[in-house]
Amino acid sequence: MPMTRIRLTLAYEGTDFCGWQVQPADRTVQGEVERALATILGRAVRVHGSGRTDAGVHALGQVVHFDCPDGRTGFPWQRGLNGILPRDVRVLDAAEVPDDFHARYGAVSKTYEYCLWHERGFCLPQRRRFVWNCGPVDFARMEAAAGLLLGEHDFAAFQNVGTDVDSTVRTVTEISRHAGPTAHESVWRFTADGFLKQMVRNLVGCLVACGRGKLDLDGVRVILEAGDRTLAPATVPPQGLTLVRVAYGEG
Amino acid sequence: MPMTRIRLTLAYEGTDFCGWQVQPADRTVQGEVERALATILGRAVRVHGSGRTDAGVHALGQVVHFDCPDGRTGFPWQRGLNGILPRDVRVLDAAEVPDDFHARYGAVSKTYEYCLWHERGFCLPQRRRFVWNCGPVDFARMEAAAGLLLGEHDFAAFQNVGTDVDSTVRTVTEISRHAGPTAHESVWRFTADGFLKQMVRNLVGCLVACGRGKLDLDGVRVILEAGDRTLAPATVPPQGLTLVRVAYGEG
Repeated sequence: MPMTRIRLTLAYEGTDFCGWQVQPADRTVQGEVERALATILGRAVRVHGSGRTDAGVHALGQVVHFDCPDGRTGFPWQRGLNGILPRDVRVLDAAEVPDDFHARYGAVSKTYEYCLWHERGFCLPQRRRFVWNCGPVDFARMEAAAGLLLGEHDFAAFQNVGTDVDSTVRTVTEISRHAGPTAHESVWRFTADGFLKQMVRNLVGCLVACGRGKLDLDGVRVILEAGDRTLAPATVPPQGLTLVRVAYGEG
Repeated sequence: MPMTRIRLTLAYEGTDFCGWQVQPADRTVQGEVERALATILGRAVRVHGSGRTDAGVHALGQVVHFDCPDGRTGFPWQRGLNGILPRDVRVLDAAEVPDDFHARYGAVSKTYEYCLWHERGFCLPQRRRFVWNCGPVDFARMEAAAGLLLGEHDFAAFQNVGTDVDSTVRTVTEISRHAGPTAHESVWRFTADGFLKQMVRNLVGCLVACGRGKLDLDGVRVILEAGDRTLAPATVPPQGLTLVRVAYGEG
């Protein structure tokens, strides 16, 4: 039977999910989307994401695809799925795409943002699910360290165990700081051709260690060159992290 | 025994609270703060708020006061309370104030903000607890209606039943529109010398009816002059509303 490939752009709040990837006993984003599609299509459908996000990590622009029977051409996927999905996952966009589109293999870059809270005395309840309270930090020190991490490097020191990869070399094209939604926050944007397991949270851990004066630029160079995870600062918590965009090549 | 009066500025996310005011069986903000104070002081303490907020309504600047034994001068109230309170209530500021300070009777004005979501197809999961999705509206029509509501009026048509007041005359000094945290939102700020029960949510209902073209300026004038709640549009949902500031007179 001929199939139509559909691309969805998803937003989700990761708080109550055990991450993206479907698991037998846990509530996951992939599991919820596949369940909603099964309701519409009357059969099981596999959804392919651009990549996994961990438990507690959010998305504003996760891209996924699935194949459905050709007869569904013109089906209102956004409305149909949003009518069924729980409110912590939403379809922002749905489109029919060529058969050679692949959410994972076609991705040429990803952008994540990590939101830091800098006020020790309190964290606003309204922001608690979306920030990590790291206290006061020196932004200039963090930005100097970010400069060392930009470009093509072997990021083995910033990869957590658990996923096999052919290479730990990645090219980071952007690490930039932005104003947060309140004056107590800063947002750190990371763009790369791909990220290793928990790489953004490990990079943020490194930058915050610099911002706290616990690590200097020479220390960052040593960690990067040694490629030894045990030398690098700890992985920071998931709730500050959001997958904001996945970019695909032309055509 | 001599007492010291303490003023607290509180933020809370209203989602999981049955409002501000203590109730025997329900979880309330006042109940949580009084429970935390009882833990610190070893006895029951009554906390006085600037006013009640309804179930689901948030605060960024609720002001409250309580009296505690004089010997507690210098106690670190912010740290002490934030160490005990649940994470959906935080003390932003704590200060010793003169005995004649009163959170409710001393308030000279209050500012609320109501956040509207304007995209019918979806509401971002990250914003769902803080907005009401009213769909597309005409801001110019809403602002024209806001102009009629500014100033001193009898707001009887915008008061819900349930609280006895001496007068339903209030002076609204500000209704202004601001950009929201995403491009899909607008934030409407209301300042007055005081608000009647659910008055902000009723004013927003009126403005949105205008923005949707369901009500015109003559209609707003008729509602305001008739003072008849049944003529005015319905109360909008609580989760878009935040108490942002309570102002007190000099000295």
